[in-house]
Amino acid sequence: MAAKILDGKKIADDIKKSLKDEISALKNRGCIPGLTVVMIGANPASQIYVNMKNKAASELGINSATVNLPEDTSQSKLLGLIAALNEDRGIHGILVQLPLPPQIDEQVIITAIDPAKDVDGFHPVNRGKLVIGEETFVPCTPLGIQKLLIHSQIETSGKHVVIVGRSRIVGLPLATMLVQKNQGANSTVTVCHTGTSNLLHFTKQADILIAAMGKAEIITGDMIKDGVVVIDVGVNRIEDRSSDKGYRIVGDVEFDSVRKKASAITPVPGGVGPMTITMLIYNTVTSAKHFMRASSSTG
Amino acid sequence: MAAKILDGKKIADDIKKSLKDEISALKNRGCIPGLTVVMIGANPASQIYVNMKNKAASELGINSATVNLPEDTSQSKLLGLIAALNEDRGIHGILVQLPLPPQIDEQVIITAIDPAKDVDGFHPVNRGKLVIGEETFVPCTPLGIQKLLIHSQIETSGKHVVIVGRSRIVGLPLATMLVQKNQGANSTVTVCHTGTSNLLHFTKQADILIAAMGKAEIITGDMIKDGVVVIDVGVNRIEDRSSDKGYRIVGDVEFDSVRKKASAITPVPGGVGPMTITMLIYNTVTSAKHFMRASSSTG
Repeated sequence: MAAKILDGKKIADDIKKSLKDEISALKNRGCIPGLTVVMIGANPASQIYVNMKNKAASELGINSATVNLPEDTSQSKLLGLIAALNEDRGIHGILVQLPLPPQIDEQVIITAIDPAKDVDGFHPVNRGKLVIGEETFVPCTPLGIQKLLIHSQIETSGKHVVIVGRSRIVGLPLATMLVQKNQGANSTVTVCHTGTSNLLHFTKQADILIAAMGKAEIITGDMIKDGVVVIDVGVNRIEDRSSDKGYRIVGDVEFDSVRKKASAITPVPGGVGPMTITMLIYNTVTSAKHFMRASSSTG
Repeated sequence: MAAKILDGKKIADDIKKSLKDEISALKNRGCIPGLTVVMIGANPASQIYVNMKNKAASELGINSATVNLPEDTSQSKLLGLIAALNEDRGIHGILVQLPLPPQIDEQVIITAIDPAKDVDGFHPVNRGKLVIGEETFVPCTPLGIQKLLIHSQIETSGKHVVIVGRSRIVGLPLATMLVQKNQGANSTVTVCHTGTSNLLHFTKQADILIAAMGKAEIITGDMIKDGVVVIDVGVNRIEDRSSDKGYRIVGDVEFDSVRKKASAITPVPGGVGPMTITMLIYNTVTSAKHFMRASSSTG
């Protein structure tokens, strides 16, 4: 029996519907959620992401702007822009598209963003709050994965989640989230990575396997047990001469061999990706609600 | 063959020797590291810890003071004290002994401490930096465990570390540290907790087992594989009529059955405890060095 396909696009659409209602309610109270994406240079992959983010934002009727700065932008110029965005009362979410060119220190920039507008959840304060279990902006990909599991009614409590990949953007925050005593969490979590001696030993044990190493089709059918739930975070371009573009996009999971044994699997594209984009809007709406609440309680 | 005893007291003493040299060097440059411990009420367990902290501080010749405030101290009074300590140029480390009485919000207090003086490493900014892998104050118990492993020449890279316990003070930060690509780390890490369905399945796999659940003698010899390294973080009081005090202190590990199979084990007391206390001094000295460097570069 082939695995159930976890349709991230469909789930993201459902979440967007309820976000639309929340955005209408905010507008009725005079607040239009505002998101600004800052992009330095013209990385084509970043351009694709930024376009998708803007498309989702405008679909849902929130204010969304992209500031494009040249590749040779100085750090102080970018800091000046962020200071202005921090002050701007019409902006509730600020996202600086990574990676940044070498003359700019990524961490300095992330730390300069007002934590209350840090919809990427990368500011140290927000990362720290995540560890403590306080309400905060959760990075979009891990949040999208958790919501996808919850909406697909996949039990996480007491399950063994094996995360392959220790990135600061996906693997580490996701591990922190899934281990806590919350809904869509309370899992026993193992984090594997390039330093893991015997990857197979761990992937074979997973009840839920999260593939987030950014390497094409590394997880194969012989590495998993029957009935596992597989979440594929990878987005890799591989050569494909049969395609007009000369390439196609695949995940970190070899879909055909894995789906034969898994009970459920996210496709690439159409799995984690749409959830990530939607969580950016979700975080921006959450931020707008916080600002509304703060202004109505002080004024 | 019985396990090697990992003598935390001996290793802590070695670290203290090198700290002494660093403290002398700082004094020669006109800086005496200063630590202030704030204690609310008279919790007897806290009193014991605070006394041990002060003893270690004075042994090493750093300035150490304890501010004792009554059990009914208000949150705003405590915040006022912290603001004063933050400003005090003679103080490099501030530690508020937890737990706090119910009228005081722990998280508000921790967040009020200047992150540059947060030698407990509990401020959200410092927790966030730990996740990102930036230099920061690392909470004393996980730092002590990592140093104990390094000083005992126990290889962590590529090993499977199983942590039992997901506390914010030990389990979660330790998992974050050990999974990173650093010295004394690069391990495959599994975090187990009260929500874990089959604890035995995981403890049996551990190359290094960290017992940090705070329950007396839960880890027994039949739960581990031969040759495992066992780090016991527990400090539990159990009834013992043969003792004058009527109780004795045991760890989370049943020492006698585990030491028969383990290759190395920390005793309780005399294992992790002395390392924790020493790391507090270590963090305070590190802080003093930062402040020295900052003042010499600005003035």
